[in-house]
Amino acid sequence: MPFSFKIEKKGGRMRAGTLVTPHGIIQTPAFVTVGTKATVKALTPEQVASLGAQVVLANTYHLYLEPGDEIVRDGGGLGKFMNWPGPTMTDSGGFQVFSLGAAFGKNASKIAERGAVPEAAAGFRGDSDEKSSVHEALAKIDEDGVSFKSVIDGSPHRFTPERSMEIQHNIGADMFFAFDECTSPHAPYEYQHEAMDRTHRWAERSLDYHQKNVKRDGDGMPTQALFGIVQGGRHEDLRKESAKIIGGMNFDGFGIGGSFDKEDMYTVVGWVNDILPEGKPRHLLGIGEPEDFFGGIENGADLFDCVAPTRLARTGNLYGAHGRININNAKFKKDFDSIATGPDGKKCVCYTCANYTAAYLSHLFRANEMEAATLASIHNLHFIVNLVKMIRQSILDEKFQEFKKEFLTKYHGK
Amino acid sequence: MPFSFKIEKKGGRMRAGTLVTPHGIIQTPAFVTVGTKATVKALTPEQVASLGAQVVLANTYHLYLEPGDEIVRDGGGLGKFMNWPGPTMTDSGGFQVFSLGAAFGKNASKIAERGAVPEAAAGFRGDSDEKSSVHEALAKIDEDGVSFKSVIDGSPHRFTPERSMEIQHNIGADMFFAFDECTSPHAPYEYQHEAMDRTHRWAERSLDYHQKNVKRDGDGMPTQALFGIVQGGRHEDLRKESAKIIGGMNFDGFGIGGSFDKEDMYTVVGWVNDILPEGKPRHLLGIGEPEDFFGGIENGADLFDCVAPTRLARTGNLYGAHGRININNAKFKKDFDSIATGPDGKKCVCYTCANYTAAYLSHLFRANEMEAATLASIHNLHFIVNLVKMIRQSILDEKFQEFKKEFLTKYHGK
Repeated sequence: MPFSFKIEKKGGRMRAGTLVTPHGIIQTPAFVTVGTKATVKALTPEQVASLGAQVVLANTYHLYLEPGDEIVRDGGGLGKFMNWPGPTMTDSGGFQVFSLGAAFGKNASKIAERGAVPEAAAGFRGDSDEKSSVHEALAKIDEDGVSFKSVIDGSPHRFTPERSMEIQHNIGADMFFAFDECTSPHAPYEYQHEAMDRTHRWAERSLDYHQKNVKRDGDGMPTQALFGIVQGGRHEDLRKESAKIIGGMNFDGFGIGGSFDKEDMYTVVGWVNDILPEGKPRHLLGIGEPEDFFGGIENGADLFDCVAPTRLARTGNLYGAHGRININNAKFKKDFDSIATGPDGKKCVCYTCANYTAAYLSHLFRANEMEAATLASIHNLHFIVNLVKMIRQSILDEKFQEFKKEFLTKYHGK
Repeated sequence: MPFSFKIEKKGGRMRAGTLVTPHGIIQTPAFVTVGTKATVKALTPEQVASLGAQVVLANTYHLYLEPGDEIVRDGGGLGKFMNWPGPTMTDSGGFQVFSLGAAFGKNASKIAERGAVPEAAAGFRGDSDEKSSVHEALAKIDEDGVSFKSVIDGSPHRFTPERSMEIQHNIGADMFFAFDECTSPHAPYEYQHEAMDRTHRWAERSLDYHQKNVKRDGDGMPTQALFGIVQGGRHEDLRKESAKIIGGMNFDGFGIGGSFDKEDMYTVVGWVNDILPEGKPRHLLGIGEPEDFFGGIENGADLFDCVAPTRLARTGNLYGAHGRININNAKFKKDFDSIATGPDGKKCVCYTCANYTAAYLSHLFRANEMEAATLASIHNLHFIVNLVKMIRQSILDEKFQEFKKEFLTKYHGK
């Protein structure tokens, strides 16, 4: 079988596992590197691999609009098209339809993005495509699907669960997500409930279309794995109901979607994962910042993705064991030491820190050189990917709590 | 001795040689890759090396302004600062002082740049810094040197021959250039003459300062080599006089500077090289386009540098054996073949062409992804660097004329 998930070690809700895909193995918990438009911004796939990334997630909404899912298909599917030989994922397109279509309004986004990234950051080097920005209400929802206008040219488009599946079959990632409705965190309870019920009906239609139409290998096994998405906002009853219903469907894995308040995110993840079937992987969508991984993993999440590491990198914000530094700060102009520390608190061993000084990287940012984004992205992704790997190791070594305490104490400067 | 130049094969004015520097050997004729601000735009040094580049040239004017030559010095010198282990060069700063200082006016620049690059190209991704643009007359020349205003913030600065040498000693490239005055091609003969005489006096002062102040190795040998620059515009008598005077000074090599009309550039190079001492390397500054290498090499030039390959790359203009293509052209959207041909007319073997389709690169440009610039720059530099290597081989094989005819016939589509 092309897909399997095995839990190697457990500790409460936590698990360290192995996810087998047609394009390679992912050791979980893992950070999924985001390559929105079939490229991890500013990096070659070789650079992505060499910093330790195991899997890349691209964005259905963006690839559908540009270059078009049929072009990705005709280019051999996502991995071949972008020259990434490892495992791949796509998201459902739901989050972007609603956030770029302004169902969210201009100030709402995934909490990890909202919390971490200055508004201006997304505009760095013309790269404003992923963020929520000021649009008219361009997304219109009905029972059957969503009509929306393109963020590129305003042209009209429509996604239904079946269409999202068709597009994601064309893009051809190893793993992908059912089509869901992503509600605003400010929406009233009644609307959250209604939207969740619709998401459940859409999940069923997604699964149905997928099972009938997915490309199968010589043994008749599906070549792509479909994950269902649990919604329900911050409401305990809705989240538990959603976990029960989505968890009861025959998905290959699960996504936990929606927007969270940071303080109750881990609680929500815990409610959901106590109900989801244990033997399948769980992806906490659009999360996170360094501290989020501990809370998410402790509450049973296996996979994470977030644009923050690369987006922050492009503004010169670099992760270190003692928190983030901004390389644009004047003090780095003449700093010939290495740039930052790794998640273990020692001198970082990434390509960037091993070969360049803080003064050089600071110069590249001041000079507005593209290589600044490349070097900073390598560092930030290396930090995040390896932080999650270290958390995984701490689970295997039964030292999660010690590592969590040690890391967070340093990271928050206490 | 850290520096030596040996001619391996001659044919008329042409030569194939070996230039030994403290950081490695350069087989000449060679294309010198431009890394204006201590970075080859959009590429890591490993990418630069793997496409076949032998040497990188950075820009004294830009590094003096940002991050400052003392920071480059304190960072271990140019090569160490930018993590390029091979040979390095800096230009004198003269060309930028005069062109960015608008002594040239807004329409003058090196012919290879003017001929090859659409005006808009230089503005691609905020990278307008190297090109001549609209400034007030910010450079003021006197016998002792030039006062000019910074292109970054308008602050006042002054270069003299001694100051240019001091700055270039700080930057610490293996090879660098005497300070010269670069005149407008539209300047009258009398002014060209006057400027040339001044350049000769500045050459003497540059050489004098260098010999007294250059850092020497354990054997007392200079660790940096200084090249004098021949000027004289398009005038035969001035060019010959300049070659005689500069050629008579004890430089380690020579630059041929100034702006040319394309049609008489090769003639000028021939005049000069018939007079310059044969045993030292000659650098045709700021040139060129594919066709320029044949004319330059045939007339005795050994080294070339030009921003055109990377600047064109950032606009999606790619070299091929049959001329340039623009990957933004609609026909490439669904073209799943490899991108371009190499200088030999066969399928290009560069990293980009070996791993990506035209459709993918076209997508990256449309999506305004940084990786577009990286992949296109790798291809264009690979093409140019290897074209010059093939010309070198044709000299060794005594097949220069055949190769020239074959290449140019294809390239110009005749």
